[in-house]
Amino acid sequence: MKPRPLITLTSDFGAGSFVGLMKGVIWGVCPRANIVDLCHVVAAQDVWGGAVVMAEALASFEPGAVHVAVVDPGVGTERRGLCLRAGGQLFVGPDNGLFTAALQTPGGWRAWRLDNRRFFRHSVSDTFHGRDIFAPVAAWLARGVAPEELGPAVDDPICLDWPRPQRRGQALIGQIIDADRFGNLTSNLGRELVLGFLAGAPASVTLDGPAGPLVIDGLSRAYGQAPPGRAVALFDSLGRLELAQVNGDLAAALGLGPGRARGLELRILRGACPAG
Amino acid sequence: MKPRPLITLTSDFGAGSFVGLMKGVIWGVCPRANIVDLCHVVAAQDVWGGAVVMAEALASFEPGAVHVAVVDPGVGTERRGLCLRAGGQLFVGPDNGLFTAALQTPGGWRAWRLDNRRFFRHSVSDTFHGRDIFAPVAAWLARGVAPEELGPAVDDPICLDWPRPQRRGQALIGQIIDADRFGNLTSNLGRELVLGFLAGAPASVTLDGPAGPLVIDGLSRAYGQAPPGRAVALFDSLGRLELAQVNGDLAAALGLGPGRARGLELRILRGACPAG
Amino acid sequence: MKPRPLITLTSDFGAGSFVGLMKGVIWGVCPRANIVDLCHVVAAQDVWGGAVVMAEALASFEPGAVHVAVVDPGVGTERRGLCLRAGGQLFVGPDNGLFTAALQTPGGWRAWRLDNRRFFRHSVSDTFHGRDIFAPVAAWLARGVAPEELGPAVDDPICLDWPRPQRRGQALIGQIIDADRFGNLTSNLGRELVLGFLAGAPASVTLDGPAGPLVIDGLSRAYGQAPPGRAVALFDSLGRLELAQVNGDLAAALGLGPGRARGLELRILRGACPAG
Repeated sequence: MKPRPLITLTSDFGAGSFVGLMKGVIWGVCPRANIVDLCHVVAAQDVWGGAVVMAEALASFEPGAVHVAVVDPGVGTERRGLCLRAGGQLFVGPDNGLFTAALQTPGGWRAWRLDNRRFFRHSVSDTFHGRDIFAPVAAWLARGVAPEELGPAVDDPICLDWPRPQRRGQALIGQIIDADRFGNLTSNLGRELVLGFLAGAPASVTLDGPAGPLVIDGLSRAYGQAPPGRAVALFDSLGRLELAQVNGDLAAALGLGPGRARGLELRILRGACPAG
Repeated sequence: MKPRPLITLTSDFGAGSFVGLMKGVIWGVCPRANIVDLCHVVAAQDVWGGAVVMAEALASFEPGAVHVAVVDPGVGTERRGLCLRAGGQLFVGPDNGLFTAALQTPGGWRAWRLDNRRFFRHSVSDTFHGRDIFAPVAAWLARGVAPEELGPAVDDPICLDWPRPQRRGQALIGQIIDADRFGNLTSNLGRELVLGFLAGAPASVTLDGPAGPLVIDGLSRAYGQAPPGRAVALFDSLGRLELAQVNGDLAAALGLGPGRARGLELRILRGACPAG
Repeated sequence: MKPRPLITLTSDFGAGSFVGLMKGVIWGVCPRANIVDLCHVVAAQDVWGGAVVMAEALASFEPGAVHVAVVDPGVGTERRGLCLRAGGQLFVGPDNGLFTAALQTPGGWRAWRLDNRRFFRHSVSDTFHGRDIFAPVAAWLARGVAPEELGPAVDDPICLDWPRPQRRGQALIGQIIDADRFGNLTSNLGRELVLGFLAGAPASVTLDGPAGPLVIDGLSRAYGQAPPGRAVALFDSLGRLELAQVNGDLAAALGLGPGRARGLELRILRGACPAG
C-alpha cells in the first residue's frame, strides 16, 4: 500500500469555517491524506508572518510533504498561483513572497505556475483560491501528480526582503522575526552562525527594546536553567537564537504588544558585557 | 475498499476538550472517517450563528458528507435529536433550527428523530449529547447505517425565521447575516438574485450602519481591484453579496463590534447613486 | 487489518505551529494514527490545568488510547520523561504531575522513564521535547512498541496535591477545579460521593464567591430545566458536580475572571438552606 501523504495548511483564516472547507476539497480528491494544521493565526494579510511559518515548515518536515499557505491579499487579481519544490518538499500558494525561505535554500528550487484547470475545483471563485485552486492542487500532488503537469516553469517567484544577519564592527547583528505565545522572541540568527562568530568565547547579547537595552550575558541550554524571572538567550527548537524569560513572558515584560517585537535589533559581542 | 467517509463538526465549544471527546467517540465507532472541524467558535448558545455555518456546509460539501452541529441550549430537556437528509448530505444535531438552510433547499428533505439507543454511546449524560448521541450517530451513518434505522420520520423540524430578500419600491432589500474574521460583511443576497435584479445595469449598494449610511457604487470582482481602504461590494466564495474594505476591516471601520453587524439592512438600486 | 490507533494531544501551545510540528513527527512514525487535539489552551506552564484535562482523558477514552501532554516548564532540565499506563490507556509527557489522576486510579498504574533514544526523533533539542521525545514515543507506542522497551520502571512519579473532598461538621466540602468556556464551574465532587452523602435528602449547595455566598437549592438534571438566569447545580458529562447559570455565564456573573474560580470552596448540606 502506498504511504499516506502529508499535507500541511497555513493561513490567516483564524477560527471560522474556511479551513474546514479546504479540508473537504482535499479529502474529496485524496481521502488518504493526513492533514496537519500548521498555523491559522497568521495576522490578517500578513505575508511576512506566513513566510516565517513556511520557513519553519521547510526546516521541520520530511521530503514529500506538501505545504499549502494562503495569506493572499491579492486573490482575484493577476498575481500568480505557484507550486515550488525545495528540499524534496512542495509548497503551494500565491506568488507573493510566502515561500521566501524555500527560495533561499542552498540546495536550490524549481517553481511552476498554476495554470492547468484540470487540477482546480470544478468552479473557481474570485475570492477563495485557497479552496478552489491551492487545496485541490495540493491534493493532486499528494496523489502523485508531477508539478510539471500544473503549468509552465517560473524562474522569478517573488522573494521578500528578509533581514539578513550582518557584522558591524566587533558585533554580530540580527533581528527579531517573531514572538510566540509564551512571549519568547525568535531571531534570524542561526546556531552555526552564532557559534562560529563566538569561536568558544562567552556571548553578550543586547536587545534594543522600547524602554532601553536588555543585556543578557551568556547562552543557556534550556529555559529552566536560570531562576524564574531571569531573561535568557538560547537556541530554539529550530536552531534559531531566542530570547526568553524563565517562567515568564519576555515580550510582555519589555512592553512589546502583538507584532511590536518584529524587526528589533539584536547585537552579540564576544566576552562579558563591559560594566556600566 | 470503501471510500473514506467525511464527517464535519460545528459547535459553540471553543477551544476546550469537548470537541476532542466527540472525535474519540466517532473514531471509536468509525476509525476510517476523515473528520473536518468546520467551526467551533459559534457564539455560546447562538443557534442562528450555527445555522449560518450549516448553510455554508450544505453549499460546499459533496453528497455523502455527514455534518454534526452542536449548539444546544436545550440539551437534557424534551427537545428532539434529529437526522436530516438534503442534497445527498446528512445533518445530525438538536432540533432547534440549526438546519434551517437544509429545510429550505428546493430539492426537499427528509428527517428522522434520534430514538434508537443502539446507536448512542453506552452511557448518555444529560448535558453532553454531542458526545453521547450526535457523535456516535454520525459515526454509524458514516459506516453505512440508513437514517431510517435511527427512529421514526419527522415532518415538522424547527425552522428559524431567516430574513428573506425582498423588493421595496425600486430597491432590492437584504440583510447582513454574518461578519467574518477579516471584518467582511456577508449578506443574504445571492448572485443570481442580484444579477437578475440589476439586469445589466450598474449597482448602487447602501448599508445602514450605526454611524450613517455607507454607499458603494458598482460591484467588484475581487478584493484587490480597488485601492486600499476603499469599501467594495462583491460576491463571496459561496455566491453571496459581501461588503469588504480593501486590505482593511470593514466591520471595525464602521464601528461594528462582534455580533453587531447581523441584521443590518442593505439596499441595492439600479444605476449610480444620486449625488448628495 | 490492524485497528487504527488513537493518539490525543494536550498542551499549552495555543494556536501557533508547535502542535502541527508534533503531528508531522507522529505521522512520520505512524501514518495510520488518528490524532485528536484534546486541548491546547491550557494556560502557559499551568501544570495543574493540564492535569485537569488528563483526568478528563482518563475518564473518557477507551483502552488503547495514547495521551500526550506537554505542559513543560522544566524542559531541558533534569526532569524525567515518563510513560504511564493506567486503565489500559497510556500517558506520555514530562514527569511533573500532569498524570496525577492516573496515579490515583483504583486499578493502579505502572510507569517507565523515557530513556531509549531509539524511539526519539533523530535530533533532540533542549527546548521542544514535545516534538523530539514525547510525539515519537507516542507514535511508537501506537505502532505496538511495549512501554517496557522505553526505559526502566519508575515507582515515584510526581503527584500534584489535588484538593480532596472532605466532611466538615454536617457539610460535604469540595472545591472548584475549573471553569469552562460557558462560565460553568466544575468541582471535584463526584456523583457517587454526593448522592451517597445526601442519601435521598435534597441538597443545598453554597459557593463562597468573591462577592459573597451563592446558595443553590436542589440539584438539576439539565441546564434547561430552570428559567434563564437562574444558577443551578448539576452533574456534568463526566459525573462531576458543576454549577452553571441557565443560558448565561456563571463565572462572569460572579465576577470571576479567567483562572479565579479555581480553588473556591463549595459546601453541600442535606435539606433546604435555612432561611436568612
